[in-house]
Amino acid sequence: MNEIIEVKYALDTFYFLVCGALVLWMAAGFAMLEAGLVRAKNTTEILTKNVALFAIACTMYMVVGYHIMYSSAEGGFLPSLGFLIGAENTAEEALASGGDIYYSARSDFFFQVVFVATAMSIVSGAVAERMKLWAFLAFAVVMTGVIYPVQGYWTWGGGFLSAAGFSDFAGSGIVHMSGASAALAGVLLLGARKGKYGKNGEINAIPGANLPLATLGTFILWLGWLGFNGGSELVLSNIDEANAVAQVFVNTNAAACGGVIAALILARLWFRKADLTMALNGALAGLVAITAGPLAPSVGAATLIGAVGGLLVVFSIVGLDKLKIDDPVGAISVHGVVGLWGLLAVPLTNDDATFSAQLLGAASIFAWVFIASFVVWLIIKAIMGIRVSEEEEYEGVDLAECGMEAYPEFTSSRK
Amino acid sequence: MNEIIEVKYALDTFYFLVCGALVLWMAAGFAMLEAGLVRAKNTTEILTKNVALFAIACTMYMVVGYHIMYSSAEGGFLPSLGFLIGAENTAEEALASGGDIYYSARSDFFFQVVFVATAMSIVSGAVAERMKLWAFLAFAVVMTGVIYPVQGYWTWGGGFLSAAGFSDFAGSGIVHMSGASAALAGVLLLGARKGKYGKNGEINAIPGANLPLATLGTFILWLGWLGFNGGSELVLSNIDEANAVAQVFVNTNAAACGGVIAALILARLWFRKADLTMALNGALAGLVAITAGPLAPSVGAATLIGAVGGLLVVFSIVGLDKLKIDDPVGAISVHGVVGLWGLLAVPLTNDDATFSAQLLGAASIFAWVFIASFVVWLIIKAIMGIRVSEEEEYEGVDLAECGMEAYPEFTSSRK
Amino acid sequence: MNEIIEVKYALDTFYFLVCGALVLWMAAGFAMLEAGLVRAKNTTEILTKNVALFAIACTMYMVVGYHIMYSSAEGGFLPSLGFLIGAENTAEEALASGGDIYYSARSDFFFQVVFVATAMSIVSGAVAERMKLWAFLAFAVVMTGVIYPVQGYWTWGGGFLSAAGFSDFAGSGIVHMSGASAALAGVLLLGARKGKYGKNGEINAIPGANLPLATLGTFILWLGWLGFNGGSELVLSNIDEANAVAQVFVNTNAAACGGVIAALILARLWFRKADLTMALNGALAGLVAITAGPLAPSVGAATLIGAVGGLLVVFSIVGLDKLKIDDPVGAISVHGVVGLWGLLAVPLTNDDATFSAQLLGAASIFAWVFIASFVVWLIIKAIMGIRVSEEEEYEGVDLAECGMEAYPEFTSSRK
Repeated sequence: MNEIIEVKYALDTFYFLVCGALVLWMAAGFAMLEAGLVRAKNTTEILTKNVALFAIACTMYMVVGYHIMYSSAEGGFLPSLGFLIGAENTAEEALASGGDIYYSARSDFFFQVVFVATAMSIVSGAVAERMKLWAFLAFAVVMTGVIYPVQGYWTWGGGFLSAAGFSDFAGSGIVHMSGASAALAGVLLLGARKGKYGKNGEINAIPGANLPLATLGTFILWLGWLGFNGGSELVLSNIDEANAVAQVFVNTNAAACGGVIAALILARLWFRKADLTMALNGALAGLVAITAGPLAPSVGAATLIGAVGGLLVVFSIVGLDKLKIDDPVGAISVHGVVGLWGLLAVPLTNDDATFSAQLLGAASIFAWVFIASFVVWLIIKAIMGIRVSEEEEYEGVDLAECGMEAYPEFTSSRK
Repeated sequence: MNEIIEVKYALDTFYFLVCGALVLWMAAGFAMLEAGLVRAKNTTEILTKNVALFAIACTMYMVVGYHIMYSSAEGGFLPSLGFLIGAENTAEEALASGGDIYYSARSDFFFQVVFVATAMSIVSGAVAERMKLWAFLAFAVVMTGVIYPVQGYWTWGGGFLSAAGFSDFAGSGIVHMSGASAALAGVLLLGARKGKYGKNGEINAIPGANLPLATLGTFILWLGWLGFNGGSELVLSNIDEANAVAQVFVNTNAAACGGVIAALILARLWFRKADLTMALNGALAGLVAITAGPLAPSVGAATLIGAVGGLLVVFSIVGLDKLKIDDPVGAISVHGVVGLWGLLAVPLTNDDATFSAQLLGAASIFAWVFIASFVVWLIIKAIMGIRVSEEEEYEGVDLAECGMEAYPEFTSSRK
Repeated sequence: MNEIIEVKYALDTFYFLVCGALVLWMAAGFAMLEAGLVRAKNTTEILTKNVALFAIACTMYMVVGYHIMYSSAEGGFLPSLGFLIGAENTAEEALASGGDIYYSARSDFFFQVVFVATAMSIVSGAVAERMKLWAFLAFAVVMTGVIYPVQGYWTWGGGFLSAAGFSDFAGSGIVHMSGASAALAGVLLLGARKGKYGKNGEINAIPGANLPLATLGTFILWLGWLGFNGGSELVLSNIDEANAVAQVFVNTNAAACGGVIAALILARLWFRKADLTMALNGALAGLVAITAGPLAPSVGAATLIGAVGGLLVVFSIVGLDKLKIDDPVGAISVHGVVGLWGLLAVPLTNDDATFSAQLLGAASIFAWVFIASFVVWLIIKAIMGIRVSEEEEYEGVDLAECGMEAYPEFTSSRK
């Protein structure tokens, strides 16, 4: 019997580590997606931001965030403060639990820490091409150390949303909508890029410099999402759990496919073109949409949930532009608007969820993250400013912030 | 005993899901490979095609293809029509089978569905730079919903080729040659790109715009192929099966290495240059060659089988150009010619296979896929046309089909 | 009991194969990193080198290297010569061992073979933009077939360094410093790139052509390193081993994060810019630093070990330039200087290691690899030359060696 517990513990730990590695890989996906969708002159900076935010997220979550999120009182609203990540399970403890301790505590930290980085990655795209690099990194410290963990505690750490029956399997709200809420607060304070909106209400397209990179980023995120959702089942080592993980894999992929098809057809009908960026955002929207509940739907239902996400993201991107909310990569639409849809779609296929609890969760997460982020952005703005100078924006933030161009031989800026 | 069955079921399911994730990743590989090998002005379109075909393949296979391929009568030629993917195994069923139901039915679907997408990806490269996007996607619907599953049923679904002793471990024929056969039918109807073949018999090289991207795509495919072949052992959970999976991993990698070395040396001797695109095609040829039988050979034999593939692909690419069959990425050579070699190489190291059965299988697959595809391409041509206008081809299909350039700041077409 | 042994064997084999696949993926990481950091005109060649060296490494190690490294006498200095990779374990042997044979012998080969390729990849970046392609490949044959395996035998194959208590968990010295030592020998013989160092002591920056590619390469290496270090625990299938693997994953990631943050802050203070290439090298330095001992430190200590690596790499890159040692990608600093730091950091957290044994190991590896490589480079230089002509260097090695440009439409060389 002990031998079985040992093997199951090893298998569940390995499953967690593999899924965590896939989520870590999503950091590359966001970096490539965003680098492909900005202009060449702002590419080095967004790459630097993506590498640095990942490092900051992992470090801050290790120092303080993990403790806040997972060591606070049951059912509460205010978490307790504490540091570091606690002790590993001993073999004695695991065996004595009779199999109730499924996996290494370190593997749990590894899986959770890459989620924080994902939430933070969402922000970097929305504020691209005009925010000061070090202001962004200062925000990342607070977001990953405090803002994200507090609301994470509410649901996954056993806080009041968990007690209220809020259901968010892998984080349509906790990760994606929360990242988008922080991004929205930043974008509102920051304003649009120069030239994006004309004086007479024109909306000027600012094309991304490298679409293969954006496509690669989307495929990386698609792959990584299998670990994001698949690992969130947390346990794999018996028949029912293995079936559940397999269902999550199938549904996650199906929702992405539904999102692509819906966004592509809508763009064809509306814009008369097979719009690649909409197809990519459709894929991501499908993935965000299914994330709150990838286990309960049939594969056909998952495709439809993703397809609705794919439609919503197209409408939302166009709509935000009408509101002059300038989001260069569409992150607020993909992760925020569609994240909300994902939360609200859960009760359609999962009888344990209710619309009222989903709305309570969505409102709580948005209110906390948006307001807290807004205040933090304001403080950073007062201390060091958040927007580069007009001249720096015109010349590109790469030279101003990083001192090097991303493609020195391909663009004419060197002349 | 039940505990052991549960753990083995979980392990085999997880192994299937991980291998399936690697095969899904191949979609990114094809996208990058093809995007790197076409000209800049046709890059957005080929990216769009790759994202869209993956979504279509997964959806069509879920709706109808999987049922055709795996729920038809034993030993037959004509499959039965049916829809959706059936029920998951219950824990009771799996336990009652005494371990004969190895893994989740959903994990099997996940693994199979990404294979369909692979077969379809092969087509997109061959018809690049001149085919209408929506004609291609219409073909994808039929190919992934019907044409591929019918011949898949013949072998892997227990149809007549399985009964005849045809041996194709992971699909040198069923996936690769079948994709290449559909591509050949399309290319013959489509004709060559403008300017590829001169009036006096000149063959003009049309260099790819982004070789790092093509190299990245090749490495992605190389990695994904470990799952493609490694997962095709289907079971891992005992010593003999684990040894078999490890042998497949080692041989798959060795064959790719053999392909690279052989293609590189041949290109050096023939063209006097270290031809990167031939090295990349050599790697892929090695992988295609070993796919029909990666378990039986020793690692040295696997290297040689791959090396022969690497030689063949160079000869084939040059030869097809002499025949004025214009395949911008070499897909017909890599997947078709070398796929046939892979099938014929099986009896060299596997005593259970015969040349006659291999030839029967190759002929059956080619005849069905080529003829069925030809008819479908003809119908699509009659309805909507399959080739863009001469002006669109000259300006690039990106603007015509997708309304956006892939590299708007790097190329001079914006002037 | 036999059933348990079978499942554990399967799980450990699968863990090895997955980790090996991640290390294989590092080949793509080195290729992208180096392709991003050289100039456009030398990109095709470095891609070709990376693909070819991987194929050569796997083939040579299969033919002779694996035998040298793992079949020689205990405690010795001179290995015995032999060929091929031996027989697979039979199920009988594995069962009779009572669980002491943990995994497939083939999976062990697969894991080891991708390490050789990593060591060789380190060399290609340092000699970029001026070395003859075929001279490099000739060196690769000797390095991967003999030089690397001999010193690998000293520690991992049970030779004299293992007996002396030298501790190098996953190869800060055996893989990284050894690759850097071979690179240093080549660079000293080769000399600097034309124009890198001016007559009056100026050091001219030669910016890389494609920083998104370099960033992608770094993320690929980061991901692959989880397998590199994580797989080096060798066994996973019980609670203590699973905990150990999880600790290694967490620490490996933490060290990379520490390296990024330290390098970024140091570059900000020193150069007044957020230097992306230093951040990337900081990540890699953190990874190299933790590789010799990723199990013993706490996650906080791992972050600090990585951070010291991130500082060292910035000082080393600047220092090597002062010494006019021209290393276009910083490989000697990242893998050599920081590799030494990694070895010396082991005794700080691991009581089983001593500084004297670490120094003996570092000195032995460096002396052997540097001297042997120097001799081999000299011989190759005498036979075929190692440096391209001045004109070829000016025009770019792509046209001279490979006959094709990497970005024919983006650069002005086509005019």
